[in-house]
Amino acid sequence: MRIEIICTGDEVLTGKIVNTNFNTITQKLEDVGLSARWGTTVGDDRETLLLAFRQAAERAEAVIVNGGLGPTVDDLSQEIAARAAGVELVLDEAWLARMEDFFRRRSRAMPPNNRKQAMLPATAEILDNPVGTACGFALDIGRARFFFTPGVPRELRRMLDEQVIPRLLAKSGLQTAMQLKRFHSYGLGESHVDALLRGVEELVPDGSVKLGFRAHYPQLETKLTARGTDAADIRRKLEPVEQEVRKRLGNFILAEDDQSLEGVVLAELGARAATLTTVETFTGGQIAARLAPAPGAERVFRRGLVVRDVAEVESAVGLLPASPPGELTREQAEAVAEAARRVNGTTHALAVLVDLDEGPDRIELGGTICLAIAAPDGVASRRSRIVGGREWVRLGAVELGLDCLRRQLQGLPVYERTDFEKT
Amino acid sequence: MRIEIICTGDEVLTGKIVNTNFNTITQKLEDVGLSARWGTTVGDDRETLLLAFRQAAERAEAVIVNGGLGPTVDDLSQEIAARAAGVELVLDEAWLARMEDFFRRRSRAMPPNNRKQAMLPATAEILDNPVGTACGFALDIGRARFFFTPGVPRELRRMLDEQVIPRLLAKSGLQTAMQLKRFHSYGLGESHVDALLRGVEELVPDGSVKLGFRAHYPQLETKLTARGTDAADIRRKLEPVEQEVRKRLGNFILAEDDQSLEGVVLAELGARAATLTTVETFTGGQIAARLAPAPGAERVFRRGLVVRDVAEVESAVGLLPASPPGELTREQAEAVAEAARRVNGTTHALAVLVDLDEGPDRIELGGTICLAIAAPDGVASRRSRIVGGREWVRLGAVELGLDCLRRQLQGLPVYERTDFEKT
Repeated sequence: MRIEIICTGDEVLTGKIVNTNFNTITQKLEDVGLSARWGTTVGDDRETLLLAFRQAAERAEAVIVNGGLGPTVDDLSQEIAARAAGVELVLDEAWLARMEDFFRRRSRAMPPNNRKQAMLPATAEILDNPVGTACGFALDIGRARFFFTPGVPRELRRMLDEQVIPRLLAKSGLQTAMQLKRFHSYGLGESHVDALLRGVEELVPDGSVKLGFRAHYPQLETKLTARGTDAADIRRKLEPVEQEVRKRLGNFILAEDDQSLEGVVLAELGARAATLTTVETFTGGQIAARLAPAPGAERVFRRGLVVRDVAEVESAVGLLPASPPGELTREQAEAVAEAARRVNGTTHALAVLVDLDEGPDRIELGGTICLAIAAPDGVASRRSRIVGGREWVRLGAVELGLDCLRRQLQGLPVYERTDFEKT
Repeated sequence: MRIEIICTGDEVLTGKIVNTNFNTITQKLEDVGLSARWGTTVGDDRETLLLAFRQAAERAEAVIVNGGLGPTVDDLSQEIAARAAGVELVLDEAWLARMEDFFRRRSRAMPPNNRKQAMLPATAEILDNPVGTACGFALDIGRARFFFTPGVPRELRRMLDEQVIPRLLAKSGLQTAMQLKRFHSYGLGESHVDALLRGVEELVPDGSVKLGFRAHYPQLETKLTARGTDAADIRRKLEPVEQEVRKRLGNFILAEDDQSLEGVVLAELGARAATLTTVETFTGGQIAARLAPAPGAERVFRRGLVVRDVAEVESAVGLLPASPPGELTREQAEAVAEAARRVNGTTHALAVLVDLDEGPDRIELGGTICLAIAAPDGVASRRSRIVGGREWVRLGAVELGLDCLRRQLQGLPVYERTDFEKT
């Protein structure tokens, strides 16, 4: 079934507010195996609304309209719905009584302009709103069924769950369900992963599994969308593709679905009742800021130290400088991690030291990263060089540090080569 | 001029990610006095994209398309643009060379599928992307000029500023020059500022100065948009309004235009050759992470300490606990700031200690914040209580800490009451 969404309102069209109602609607559709094919955003303007309704009616079988049901002059949804459907607006006495009762129960007199909210297109079927005065309704425009919903988020959610979704499911008559499977990785570029995964969709010959990506450096999200008749059918189709993705991307997969890198690290540490100290230089607190607010950090994350530069890092953890100032080494990071672990009395310490190139910020600017993880069973370290400007190096160093900690905790090699580094 | 926006991508259509690119585009349009009339969201699907391009071409004079310029199979914008315009895709040798150079400068071989990003419609005018491999382009489809932009936010922002907006302004034929003046504040809510600034627009009777707001908690941005015949005319109009805004918002203005709170703090410290240590608890490194990467931090920001909880903060700076565990006090924060300043040998230290309420996260959850600034000329401190859930308290504490440091450095009262705190 072709479903469209129309979001109305000058605030969303001008970007004054972020349109999270759109995501509420699409996610609730996806949750039941339906999906939107088209989204439209228009302002509080009669001609634009009318055109948007008419064009959606030509493309779709079902249209969810959000907003414009309020009492003020810029709320136009009922009026334009009636025009698009070619019917009159009529007063719904039952809804008017509901509204008067709504105000009475809150010991307020109903302002006269709220009466407008009970003016509905003659052919409208009411969609109940138990938590507000905006009356939802459904009606046919052309060959499409339109569902008008309020802009207040909690009223929208309730009406979707109780009124709109059940009607859409009945109308769709579809047995197919849908599932999204996500893999998060660090260290491989999008086109590299695309090449590595060539052909995995064809493991399910009927085309019901689709591969997609979302890159947000330094992480990459690999997505599998699967459709089937029911949950078991989907599981059966996804299983071999999931296994193949895990095999091909191997240790680079750092988390799946709603997991995060920091969540995985904290869970690993939490499972062994471990505690953590972090020491960082150029990353400036970003490693600590990723870990500290995450669930599970309370018991694990003990202390974070941010030091201006590598030259000061040894004294900051109570060490005498091990070597004269010079090239940053893995041994230096190892000594810092071990000292930080000892001084702060934690079971683990992660030290991420960065020696940034001299000169102004530019795309060729790089940084040398020496990181070490001190743990009860010894110390692991790696050296890496990332090029691409200050911010690129910084983001890469944060991710590399956290990902190496994950690898160490999961018993994987800490020094697998990534696409982002230079030798 | 009728401008439309088309956002493409299964992730935005299915609501997996919130479409903030739409807001980036609309806000940049509004900032120069243009506005979008229609927004469309479609997935990575050939027929839908083609229909979306054709329908927009019938309604609009200019269309900004976002996304679908990447190297993978689900990136379809060039292909469908060419189909909609009725022209061939041809290899742009110059862009191919740019991409090869882009990879070479990062010491990476260009994967073969990136070649696809240099296949452009024959009639395309290139829109430069100095920070990525996705080539932006403009071309006519029907009577509308289409501008294709990348989905990566920083690439989009740069291309809008440097390529798209100037072309739209030229196309719109607006004779008047325009200037945007921005004030950043912390501590006053939008409706409060709106009330405080009532009538400032009328200081320029011809209506050429408009007031607007953009709230992004904890900061609020107050915008003045001025139109005039030339820069001098605009300056003459803006001047009295700017002065009035500064007078009415007073010490709450923390920065103007492209300045940031952290930039102002670092400039104040840098000007007196000062150095800074930060100590934080529940904010988990976010104060350090705001300061450390900002320009000017190299000479100023010396050390950041993140401690799990208030009970450990004294030992972390080498103090014996001054008082038995109990209610967090300003005196405690002052002692910690003074010790941190002494131990780390910096001229200044900022300590932000937070005692979060017990229990699960909820809207009524609050935190008590005691912060102190130790400086050569003494110590300043304040106590504050913020309610609104974990994340709200965390964001508020970071901002309050940095803003009080600004106030101390600028010789302003550190303890002016904000709208966000409870007594």
